[in-house]
Amino acid sequence: MKLTILGCYAATPRTISNPTSQVLEIKNKLFLIDCAEGTQVQLRKSKVKFSKISQIFISHLHGDHFYGLIGLISTFMLLNRKNDLHVYGPKGIKEIILMQLKASGSYTGYNLYFHELESKESEIIFEDDRVMVKTIPLSHRIYTNGFLFQEKNSERKLNIEKVEQYNIDKVYFNKLKYGGDMTLDNGKIIPNSELTFDPQASKSYAYCSDTMYNEAIIPIIENSDYLYHESTFLESESHLSERTMHSTAKQAATIAKNANVKNLILGHFSTRYNNIDLFKQEAQTIFENTFLADDGKEFNMI
Amino acid sequence: MKLTILGCYAATPRTISNPTSQVLEIKNKLFLIDCAEGTQVQLRKSKVKFSKISQIFISHLHGDHFYGLIGLISTFMLLNRKNDLHVYGPKGIKEIILMQLKASGSYTGYNLYFHELESKESEIIFEDDRVMVKTIPLSHRIYTNGFLFQEKNSERKLNIEKVEQYNIDKVYFNKLKYGGDMTLDNGKIIPNSELTFDPQASKSYAYCSDTMYNEAIIPIIENSDYLYHESTFLESESHLSERTMHSTAKQAATIAKNANVKNLILGHFSTRYNNIDLFKQEAQTIFENTFLADDGKEFNMI
Repeated sequence: MKLTILGCYAATPRTISNPTSQVLEIKNKLFLIDCAEGTQVQLRKSKVKFSKISQIFISHLHGDHFYGLIGLISTFMLLNRKNDLHVYGPKGIKEIILMQLKASGSYTGYNLYFHELESKESEIIFEDDRVMVKTIPLSHRIYTNGFLFQEKNSERKLNIEKVEQYNIDKVYFNKLKYGGDMTLDNGKIIPNSELTFDPQASKSYAYCSDTMYNEAIIPIIENSDYLYHESTFLESESHLSERTMHSTAKQAATIAKNANVKNLILGHFSTRYNNIDLFKQEAQTIFENTFLADDGKEFNMI
Repeated sequence: MKLTILGCYAATPRTISNPTSQVLEIKNKLFLIDCAEGTQVQLRKSKVKFSKISQIFISHLHGDHFYGLIGLISTFMLLNRKNDLHVYGPKGIKEIILMQLKASGSYTGYNLYFHELESKESEIIFEDDRVMVKTIPLSHRIYTNGFLFQEKNSERKLNIEKVEQYNIDKVYFNKLKYGGDMTLDNGKIIPNSELTFDPQASKSYAYCSDTMYNEAIIPIIENSDYLYHESTFLESESHLSERTMHSTAKQAATIAKNANVKNLILGHFSTRYNNIDLFKQEAQTIFENTFLADDGKEFNMI
């Protein structure tokens, strides 16, 4: 898993900072999470291969999380995209996008599917052989979901020494990775357990932006390897945080601690702060493994 | 009049180029013309005072001309704007913007007026004591208008030498500028013609993007001081130009020549060209006073 932060600031795009968007890479598959104005330029800056994005997850319909979506969809059109595109987001998103495409007299040459979300309970919204995505219902001023990305790892790891010892041809490697035993030319059966190791532990990433402090999410995100939790404000501005239904760095750290996650990434910083290191300092009084998001920054979740 | 090009490239925003948007300053008043994705960041880069924009003119509903509008309107909201904002654009624009504001649970703290355009004839859509704006019906794939900005100059210029000679107090200057005669303390009347010069010639700017070659616009833009005319392609790609209902540099220059404008600014360049000087070269075979737009470039139309 590799996470690239395209933008991690609240409110408006500026020359030096971008509102929220991220790309999560899992086993060569790219998931776009939120898509603020400027996302396509940020994708280009990060040299992300546009065409590999097939799933876009939109947390909520505030502009700093989705005003770049219509532009990205249009650009895919101009780039002559052919493969399907799936958009997951709150009810209403389909009408907003289609109305704009209609007004421009444009029709996508690819299939564009909308999966509109309404449930206030966590639900599985995407699943394939590599990853499962679940919603994390958040508490914000409008209907908002975070997303839990759970890597699937059913592939066993080859014991190269043993495989070479038995001179096993590589055409059998996939069979071994998926737990099959091996029958040698002399008829002898070698059990899979002798030829492979257990799969690596599968990773998980929980994305929570935007939300007020909400312990109800803990059972969903519990034990995640990485948690991105918004911290729009510091405790010194907790009155603003409460009024706008956002979180402080301390609150984000408290969620991280209580959910027993391994690492916390802070983001969605209000642009009122010149020194975002203060967010890390505040969070680390509660939760040590805290990192700061920044536009263009990559997190290799190995 | 001062024109600032915020973006002048066709199709999609890129790291090195922006789609269409311009700010025209006339006597301290700012008019925003088109508003592609990224316009608010370009406004910040050009250090334009956001709050001074009260009129926004949108030529048509292709994304590279208006996908930045919803973000700008939202940012005005966050910046606590109080003064009225007027948006002029094709029918449909109001519903697109209001639907998105509604979805985000946001309401502007300022008055937002939409002036939806449907007419296929040129019409006056804005007028105050400083400027008049007329539509220029263009020929593109969807309903599109250019805009003619006609400066009004009713103010006469003070003859400082004479004004000092008669020792006229500055409280009378405005009266003189608007043609009034002066009665001196001794009862003598000095005619205005002795105290002032004729007003400076008023300037005009014609904005024409996007359009195929269309001679019908000539009577509207005739004798303009500056004409911005799109030239998406060079003649070598005239087959693309025809198919997409755009113009070549040569066609733009032909319009400039036949309309007897003083200066031509080319823009809306396809990003397929690495050397935009070729546009100038092609145009200058027809019309000498040709300039190239470029992101961030300013034209002082004195």
